[in-house]
Amino acid sequence: MQAVALYPDGPELRVIEKERPSPEDGEVLIRALRVGIDGSDRRIAAGEIGGDVPDGEDHLVMGHEAVGVVENANGTDIEEGTVVAPLVRRPVDKGSRFAANEELDMAPPGTFHERGIMGEHGYLSEYFVSDPSYLVEVPESRAEYGFFVEPTSILEKSLDQAFTARSAFDWQPKSAFVLGNGNLGLLALARLETGDEFDRTYCLGRRDRPDRTIDFIEEVGGTYVDSRQTPVADFAEEYEPADYVFETTGYPKHAVDAVHALGPNGVATVQGIPEGSASFDIDCATFHRELVVSNKALLGVVNSRKPHFEAGAEWLEEVPTAVLDRLMTGIYGLDEIEEAFADSPETLKSVVSFDR
Amino acid sequence: MQAVALYPDGPELRVIEKERPSPEDGEVLIRALRVGIDGSDRRIAAGEIGGDVPDGEDHLVMGHEAVGVVENANGTDIEEGTVVAPLVRRPVDKGSRFAANEELDMAPPGTFHERGIMGEHGYLSEYFVSDPSYLVEVPESRAEYGFFVEPTSILEKSLDQAFTARSAFDWQPKSAFVLGNGNLGLLALARLETGDEFDRTYCLGRRDRPDRTIDFIEEVGGTYVDSRQTPVADFAEEYEPADYVFETTGYPKHAVDAVHALGPNGVATVQGIPEGSASFDIDCATFHRELVVSNKALLGVVNSRKPHFEAGAEWLEEVPTAVLDRLMTGIYGLDEIEEAFADSPETLKSVVSFDR
Repeated sequence: MQAVALYPDGPELRVIEKERPSPEDGEVLIRALRVGIDGSDRRIAAGEIGGDVPDGEDHLVMGHEAVGVVENANGTDIEEGTVVAPLVRRPVDKGSRFAANEELDMAPPGTFHERGIMGEHGYLSEYFVSDPSYLVEVPESRAEYGFFVEPTSILEKSLDQAFTARSAFDWQPKSAFVLGNGNLGLLALARLETGDEFDRTYCLGRRDRPDRTIDFIEEVGGTYVDSRQTPVADFAEEYEPADYVFETTGYPKHAVDAVHALGPNGVATVQGIPEGSASFDIDCATFHRELVVSNKALLGVVNSRKPHFEAGAEWLEEVPTAVLDRLMTGIYGLDEIEEAFADSPETLKSVVSFDR
Repeated sequence: MQAVALYPDGPELRVIEKERPSPEDGEVLIRALRVGIDGSDRRIAAGEIGGDVPDGEDHLVMGHEAVGVVENANGTDIEEGTVVAPLVRRPVDKGSRFAANEELDMAPPGTFHERGIMGEHGYLSEYFVSDPSYLVEVPESRAEYGFFVEPTSILEKSLDQAFTARSAFDWQPKSAFVLGNGNLGLLALARLETGDEFDRTYCLGRRDRPDRTIDFIEEVGGTYVDSRQTPVADFAEEYEPADYVFETTGYPKHAVDAVHALGPNGVATVQGIPEGSASFDIDCATFHRELVVSNKALLGVVNSRKPHFEAGAEWLEEVPTAVLDRLMTGIYGLDEIEEAFADSPETLKSVVSFDR
């Protein structure tokens, strides 16, 4: 079978011929349908983050946003032909107690691998195997969109953490502010507009009209916020204090700025992962005081777990497919891997399809 | 009756003669037993924070950490002779929905007064009145210590918010790190050592031995951390990653540093309220990344509500009174107000007693 492999020396991305994996006891064989490519994949391919090859191998099969069909149930309970999206993390050895709890997203660094990201092969290959407990069913009618389940699950985890954190009192949020108009930001905005958690949504960008991301924001019902006119820290004053901020930019200052964008009792979750160091002159007194006197919360959120994937799969059935179609700016075959991994201002979600 | 009043012009603190208040319908009359003085009181007296006088008046009666006895139940359900500690916030006009919910601690600024702090007279007078719904019963055997209920309630609110925020997964915290060895920090440490939430506690200070705060920390079972040897940001490496940080210093950089002191899935709550501006060169990339990859949480916490007061009152019965005695470094009469408000390295909790 064919697979897209990262060779860390270089680093270099190659389409290679690999033996089709055989499911071990308790594993199933999945035929890949589509795999989404996101910013992390591009950073891995560029050698910036992750990319650790599995023990004893010289390459890492890429891909962590996948949808496929169970081809061989191998004696497990799952029905052959079921459309599934696989979770990303797998325990190292027996893993921590978080593996047993199905809360690998909360496991401490070092106790897990991330398929297609570090330490374990991903899903960008014609076939892959998985323990079925790491698979979530995708509605058959949404098989072509099932790779959106993984990124949607990040927003679902953020909502889970944010609402839980605010459940010690009667929180009545109205406004949500998404930082970033890349694919994750726009997907999150569409999800927030479909759901009933918030009345008003906003999305931060840095683009001039006409622009497809601004069009998308407005067509799903959100308000575009241009960071050149309204820096995040000024959002509350220029628009309205946000009850919830969902950060996707990885811009280092946004963790601090997000707190200023919040209104009383607001909660910001940060998901972007900046590399290295980046120092800024920060008014820590104001940051500290605003947190305290307005009971604000700032949460770091990474990865996601099964209920978040399930919520993502459920949402796929609700959202008009036309909305998702607009996020897919390129569908590529395995013979177009360079194009699939290329980035441009026009790129939102690039997808590798195994049907092509 | 006598009362301790702040005249904002100056500002000046005076013991004045005032008419004993008459409870209105639905209010009770309370005879004050003791009132604790904390750092906020000293800052109010110095004109640094709060101090807004009630409408139409030229002074503010001080005091927000109080214990008293119901002297006139005025037809309400509360029994005369009940020992009570009063909550601090009261709604302005009808207040927000948070007043109706008994969650005034989460009410947005502008919708409440704080008795003895801003907008409404406090408890540093021989008698005061209150709606009984803002009173919490104190065990009679702990009447002399009842003013500790208010500061303890701040820690109880922090624990409430922190554990709630971490309830979206199976959190198993072991270590707690208190920032600050003032009265609130030491009280919090004693409470954390009495409770079963954590196995190990640490307390940050900046003092040389021999020192009464270091002795206190070690005698209740905590570990003293000298910030001159181990800055907060280095705590995780030098001691152990903290699962919970409780900040009481108001030092502006501690909101950021606390996140570095946390281990994976840890939660820090900040309570101190720095004034003005204070800029620091902050490595925002590391701050942002640590939040994300380790699922950390940073929560601002201000004030507290009835269940937190009730938990504080309950704890007073559990903790040996000898522990509380060690925190009281001065008990003063109304004729010694200057001494009661004075601060020194030896001062922990100064108390005004109406029996003297």
